[in-house]
Amino acid sequence: MKIEPRTLKGFRDFLPKDARKRNYVIETLRRVFESYGFEPLETPALEYEDILLGKYGEEGDKLMYRFEDNGGRRVALRYDQTVPLARFVAQYQNDLPLPFKRYQISNVWRADNTQKGRFREFLQCDIDTVGTLSIQSDAEIIQVVIKSLEKLGFGQFKILVNDRSLFEDVSRETITIIDKLKKIGEEGVFSELREKGLDGNILANVRSSKPTEKINQVLTILSDDRVVFEPTLARGLDYYTGLIVEVEIDGYSAGSVGGGGRYDNLIGMFAGRQIPAVGFAFGFDRLIEAMDELNLFPTELDGKTKVLVAIPSKELEKIAVETANKLRNSGINTETWLDESKMEKQFKYAEKKEIPYVVVPIDDKTVELRTKSQTGEIVKKIIELNSLPDAIK
Amino acid sequence: MKIEPRTLKGFRDFLPKDARKRNYVIETLRRVFESYGFEPLETPALEYEDILLGKYGEEGDKLMYRFEDNGGRRVALRYDQTVPLARFVAQYQNDLPLPFKRYQISNVWRADNTQKGRFREFLQCDIDTVGTLSIQSDAEIIQVVIKSLEKLGFGQFKILVNDRSLFEDVSRETITIIDKLKKIGEEGVFSELREKGLDGNILANVRSSKPTEKINQVLTILSDDRVVFEPTLARGLDYYTGLIVEVEIDGYSAGSVGGGGRYDNLIGMFAGRQIPAVGFAFGFDRLIEAMDELNLFPTELDGKTKVLVAIPSKELEKIAVETANKLRNSGINTETWLDESKMEKQFKYAEKKEIPYVVVPIDDKTVELRTKSQTGEIVKKIIELNSLPDAIK
Repeated sequence: MKIEPRTLKGFRDFLPKDARKRNYVIETLRRVFESYGFEPLETPALEYEDILLGKYGEEGDKLMYRFEDNGGRRVALRYDQTVPLARFVAQYQNDLPLPFKRYQISNVWRADNTQKGRFREFLQCDIDTVGTLSIQSDAEIIQVVIKSLEKLGFGQFKILVNDRSLFEDVSRETITIIDKLKKIGEEGVFSELREKGLDGNILANVRSSKPTEKINQVLTILSDDRVVFEPTLARGLDYYTGLIVEVEIDGYSAGSVGGGGRYDNLIGMFAGRQIPAVGFAFGFDRLIEAMDELNLFPTELDGKTKVLVAIPSKELEKIAVETANKLRNSGINTETWLDESKMEKQFKYAEKKEIPYVVVPIDDKTVELRTKSQTGEIVKKIIELNSLPDAIK
Repeated sequence: MKIEPRTLKGFRDFLPKDARKRNYVIETLRRVFESYGFEPLETPALEYEDILLGKYGEEGDKLMYRFEDNGGRRVALRYDQTVPLARFVAQYQNDLPLPFKRYQISNVWRADNTQKGRFREFLQCDIDTVGTLSIQSDAEIIQVVIKSLEKLGFGQFKILVNDRSLFEDVSRETITIIDKLKKIGEEGVFSELREKGLDGNILANVRSSKPTEKINQVLTILSDDRVVFEPTLARGLDYYTGLIVEVEIDGYSAGSVGGGGRYDNLIGMFAGRQIPAVGFAFGFDRLIEAMDELNLFPTELDGKTKVLVAIPSKELEKIAVETANKLRNSGINTETWLDESKMEKQFKYAEKKEIPYVVVPIDDKTVELRTKSQTGEIVKKIIELNSLPDAIK
């Protein structure tokens, strides 16, 4: 009986071309994070349900993947990387040198509405500094975000900042509606507030707010005119207490590519004492989409196969394998053909896989090197095996 | 109310030191895989339950994490990476250039007995070649395994090979028992076979088997005396059809660090036609454990923070941040202290985090560079800011 091969709604396979783009972004971010002293951390995909429940607001609880495991425990799949970090810090608080600066890059799962183009499994890239209230740590998070965007190749962008304390007297319900400003516009916010019997004028009040002393200090430390005070910035999540941040890319209108802020009380829920923290999460899918739209990926991504060594006959098989090893030893990613097949089939395979060079062994000293010219014709050269690596590099 | 911070049995947090080791192994394997033309693939953590059920034998079905999602679908967490690959190949068979060579490095979940030291979430690193029956592809998989072990620094190891077809007339139950030979010894196998009313002499018969023609060809292609025919090698999983492989590391007795083989019928369960395949999976935790025991990790792992720039006074804060940026621009991972604190606290932090250099700014042109001598004393030098990156590199 044949089983129908299919994936769940909102879950994706990443084919090599996309997987390579993802690896490129991950490696770029990782290098920036590490250059500022952030260290890698991994936490489990599954946590006890009570660790995650009630931390993200009502919607979070609804969208969380929760179930009973074989041992009768109530468990939940990671919903973000901040709550597991809080749990982790509380658990290891006596051994952890503070401030603790960590990054985590892993998948999270949310049973969100796929009709809105949302995914149910997606990658997050987080940096967080735990254990200090210093304004320097707020500024450093933003600095790392700026450096990350620059290294990924983004030219023009804005870092919007605000202070959650400006919303101290505003109800959670109202914040959730103001948070939709970008999506539904000013009139949308106004009418939704009125519909729910809330003060429709709040947006005007919010808009006229002045930056807090802390925000001013952050702006001064950074002295970067891409960092802008935006009083209507609200951020949906419950746990923020101070600075909040969002990133907008010029020329990419689908939304913020990441956000974060200060959350000084979350870890305390697990630790039994206040341990302040500030952090930022890149929305990985949006980053990739923005980079695609703005053409920021290098034409040849790291790790791509550069050469196919063809096998013209059984007799030349051994020479082909040795030629491939020679190229690999020179740091060139090389595939050998694995079957006996017509040359045409081998050339077609290389073309379909976008492998730029095909090497056809002639004897134990010479090969034919085939590649495409810029106008798309096949260019062939007979060269000595010894000079092959240099001819390709 | 305080929530007790804790992790589920069999699930682990990886602190920076361990996470860095893991990244090192992943990057090393990835480079080897890519040098042979294997390409990255990612599949979802969750699949429809019927995709995974019944592919791993009875025990697999029992240990699988399965549940009903919010939409009432029966779903299961990834149990290995081979069955999702089979599903993937069947789904994309019309667009995929064959042979398809992919690697996948991701977590799998099994609700296994934690008392035996097994984990419930663990990483697998797989390579597979899909779409060819060629002996060359069998040999290449083994070649990549050998190259991977060498690049990780293993000096002495054995690749045990066998052919599943030698067990053609042996019952599944018997294979499962023979597979335990390493763990329970010859007498254990004998008595367990007898207990279950099976032929106790089978082991002697198996032991006297001769390699098949295909195995002989693989051995000839590889001509490597670390690759050894082992007629008692059985492999637990149901889906193998030809070559089977396991790796043993000299000086590491806890067990095989990886295994694999040919499975020519698995993909057909999804594709409706036979698509042959051969592959190998590294057991990541065992690799790391073996490398730890044999001291194979470099003393300084990539990405580690090399310098802490201390902040001796508020006035020198700006210079400290600029100094740190200068070092980062020279490719040196550098942390700045984020608070105003006593110098003693800052030095202690560097020591606890094993950061080898501390830079104390003196004025806008000079700094004090502190490091430990080999005998453990603090060595201090006053040097010019301009020559700082060279002094550290």
